Amino acid sequence: QLLNIIKKTHMADLSIVFENLTPLNQEKLFNLLDNPDDIGLLFSHLSEKTFVAVVKIVDFDKLVTVFDHMPSDDAAELLGCLDEELSDKILSKMKKEESYNVEQIMSYEEDSAGSLMVKDYVALEEDVKAKEVIEALQNKYLDVEMPFYIYVIDNYGKLVGVSSLRQLVVESPDKPLKSFMSTDIVSVKPYTDRDVVARLVSRYDFLAIPVVDDDNRIIGIVTVDDVIDILHESATEDMLKMAGVGEDYVETQSILKGTRIRLPWMFASCLGGIANFFIIGRFESTLVQLTVLAAFMPIIMGMGGNIGTQSATIVVRGIATGRVNIRDFVKVISRELGVGFLLGITYGGLIAAVTKVSFMAESFSWALSVVVGCSILSSMTVAAFVGTSVPMIFQRLSIDPAVATGPFVTTTMDLISVYCYFTIIKLLLGF
Amino acid sequence: QLLNIIKKTHMADLSIVFENLTPLNQEKLFNLLDNPDDIGLLFSHLSEKTFVAVVKIVDFDKLVTVFDHMPSDDAAELLGCLDEELSDKILSKMKKEESYNVEQIMSYEEDSAGSLMVKDYVALEEDVKAKEVIEALQNKYLDVEMPFYIYVIDNYGKLVGVSSLRQLVVESPDKPLKSFMSTDIVSVKPYTDRDVVARLVSRYDFLAIPVVDDDNRIIGIVTVDDVIDILHESATEDMLKMAGVGEDYVETQSILKGTRIRLPWMFASCLGGIANFFIIGRFESTLVQLTVLAAFMPIIMGMGGNIGTQSATIVVRGIATGRVNIRDFVKVISRELGVGFLLGITYGGLIAAVTKVSFMAESFSWALSVVVGCSILSSMTVAAFVGTSVPMIFQRLSIDPAVATGPFVTTTMDLISVYCYFTIIKLLLGF
Ligand SMILES: [Mg+2]
Ligand SMILES: [Mg+2]
Ligand SMILES: [Mg+2]
Ligand SMILES: [Mg+2]
Ligand SMILES: [Mg+2]
Ligand SMILES: [Mg+2]
Ligand SMILES: [Mg+2]
Ligand SMILES: [Mg+2]
Ligand SMILES: [Mg+2]
Ligand SMILES: [Mg+2]
Ligand SMILES: [Mg+2]
Ligand SMILES: [Mg+2]
Ligand SMILES: [Mg+2]
Repeated sequence: QLLNIIKKTHMADLSIVFENLTPLNQEKLFNLLDNPDDIGLLFSHLSEKTFVAVVKIVDFDKLVTVFDHMPSDDAAELLGCLDEELSDKILSKMKKEESYNVEQIMSYEEDSAGSLMVKDYVALEEDVKAKEVIEALQNKYLDVEMPFYIYVIDNYGKLVGVSSLRQLVVESPDKPLKSFMSTDIVSVKPYTDRDVVARLVSRYDFLAIPVVDDDNRIIGIVTVDDVIDILHESATEDMLKMAGVGEDYVETQSILKGTRIRLPWMFASCLGGIANFFIIGRFESTLVQLTVLAAFMPIIMGMGGNIGTQSATIVVRGIATGRVNIRDFVKVISRELGVGFLLGITYGGLIAAVTKVSFMAESFSWALSVVVGCSILSSMTVAAFVGTSVPMIFQRLSIDPAVATGPFVTTTMDLISVYCYFTIIKLLLGF
Repeated sequence: QLLNIIKKTHMADLSIVFENLTPLNQEKLFNLLDNPDDIGLLFSHLSEKTFVAVVKIVDFDKLVTVFDHMPSDDAAELLGCLDEELSDKILSKMKKEESYNVEQIMSYEEDSAGSLMVKDYVALEEDVKAKEVIEALQNKYLDVEMPFYIYVIDNYGKLVGVSSLRQLVVESPDKPLKSFMSTDIVSVKPYTDRDVVARLVSRYDFLAIPVVDDDNRIIGIVTVDDVIDILHESATEDMLKMAGVGEDYVETQSILKGTRIRLPWMFASCLGGIANFFIIGRFESTLVQLTVLAAFMPIIMGMGGNIGTQSATIVVRGIATGRVNIRDFVKVISRELGVGFLLGITYGGLIAAVTKVSFMAESFSWALSVVVGCSILSSMTVAAFVGTSVPMIFQRLSIDPAVATGPFVTTTMDLISVYCYFTIIKLLLGF
């Protein structure tokens, strides 16, 4: 009965149940599963932590069978999570062809097209007729995950065309592939970055994209479901980097591990704060003369920090989605500078007015409101400039703009805001 | 010759060229295109601004033909960008069936499954045989965008099963659909949120998901290429919302328009800053007695703001990816509180030590370093709490956590940090 429920549940859902079971119950549930395809699918949906734990309770031969049945990209990813001794042992017991494929995929760098590809695809020669393709699908290519494209190769194995299952059904059975294949092929290399792969699949609405070696021979395909995972992961990583948590932070980590990962990322902010402490220390005599000046520090820092984050986020995301191009450096910066200046005028004016009203009775109320207004204006303009240029410069230097931007921009802006403020005080008030 | 190049270029690429041309050249280039399918594809890749401009130079009859040929989801989206008069005029001239489909899609709310679906899908009855399905694909369903799934309906039009083109090719020609269809169907309603649609397609690795009405009759499908667009857009919107720019900010906007959109989002930050000004004002007598206390404000605010942003980002993104569940409210908050406390101890201790060393010569150095350390600790712990709980509470109240979190958390944290700091001073130093 329970078995029946499990049989009907998709492994993606069972994996969620699984994550929440005690190890003992995980073992019980696991023993009810026997289809290696299902187990493989379950594995690929588990979190790394649970997967590593579950592997320990699985019979070794069963494990090898599961890996033999898994799509090569998932097998490569999961084996990469295990310790090397175990993964080597599994690879050595797997079918020659399967382990060869998996090892090839594992040999490519993380986040490259090669590390994401599957080796199951349909590649046939130009002269094969439509009906022969269908026969091949019925016999030879039964376990191909996504046979929606038929890749066409020449005698040397080079990729020369592509057709689709959809087209095949429509064409007359005796036509050879070369008579109806499309020759506009978009392909990637195994070392192409995953973000580029995702952008191509998304731009052309492909269901898969072929990976070819430097001689244009097809060696695998990246499928659209994995592109979805890439987009998801890339966006998450960028957001975490910008928040200064490091790309690999996982919500379900233990408190100690979470602390350890986040600890170094706050160091920049801490150093900046200490630097700020010394800057303000140098202006102590100013503060002693008019203590109320200290009360404006948070609003000046806040407005600068806010617009700096806005600009940095717009640019970092714009670079990731391809809508901001670093060749437009000057154009993008001048636009943001313009926005920063206008916002600075508006809020500088507003806050200056509030200041004037609050200190109505004092003789220095005019001077003070001008100082505050100018500080807000300069801090916001500079912040827009820093927030825009830092990620673009990092991108040009091939440093990930997301990781470099977040805490860096905030901390820099805090320093600049405070420094601008006291400098303007000195200039305008003379102490 | 130029024509040849254009014919060979994918419309997704041509659209990029197009965006960068002068209106005159846009018109010239446009007149070289005559295939309505191509023009439709070009339209759907253009930015809204360019599309609206280009529509003006197109012959009205040509426009109608283009919209007749477009997939219904794209037509609905594009017509939504035009002013109502024009879109009504186009709809009234379109083929009855096409305009009916498009109007249905346009009737659903933005960001719902209904507004994203296409009306081109293959739905056949249970008794139809495999070979008859293939015949239907060859004749009746020629312009279906993605016929990879065959949906099976009963006599009442209710969705009862699903098969795939891949399976069809393998089954023997005389088998009826009901003998090999799968009956585990995952479907969505037209009013299902797009993020839920994206999550389902991504979890089960579908190429399309059927949209059914409340009587379980299929009324459309959402295809995987549009799910990719949803994921892209959702992530961008969340990042922009968290940065306090509003979800609809576009990088290529004019300076004035950019300023207008961003202006209101800074208001929270401005109000917070003014509130902070009054809080500090109330503690002026404290600052007068020991001005150096002002120099610690930036580091305390900075550390609190930093960890608050970390926690908020982790939770907002965790909710979006489904890895943080609001049912785990207590668990998530206690974990973040733990991390906040440990980070607070570490950095509080570190900064207290720096303070002790800096003021070595002063009699109050011990007291001051204790005050600073405690302020950092409490500010960081509270920040972790606020950053975690605010998005979770908003999510529970069905308010978008991303839009509510960004500037809100930062501004709140600035206030709390300053207030904690001066309260601790009063408690420990007595002035
Ligand atoms: Mg295999
Ligand atoms: Mg990674
Ligand atoms: Mg697309
Ligand atoms: Mg895969
Ligand atoms: Mg996958
Ligand atoms: Mg990246
Ligand atoms: Mg149509
Ligand atoms: Mg929207
Ligand atoms: Mg998936
Ligand atoms: Mg579509
Ligand atoms: Mg689309
Ligand atoms: Mg959303
Ligand atoms: Mg701040």
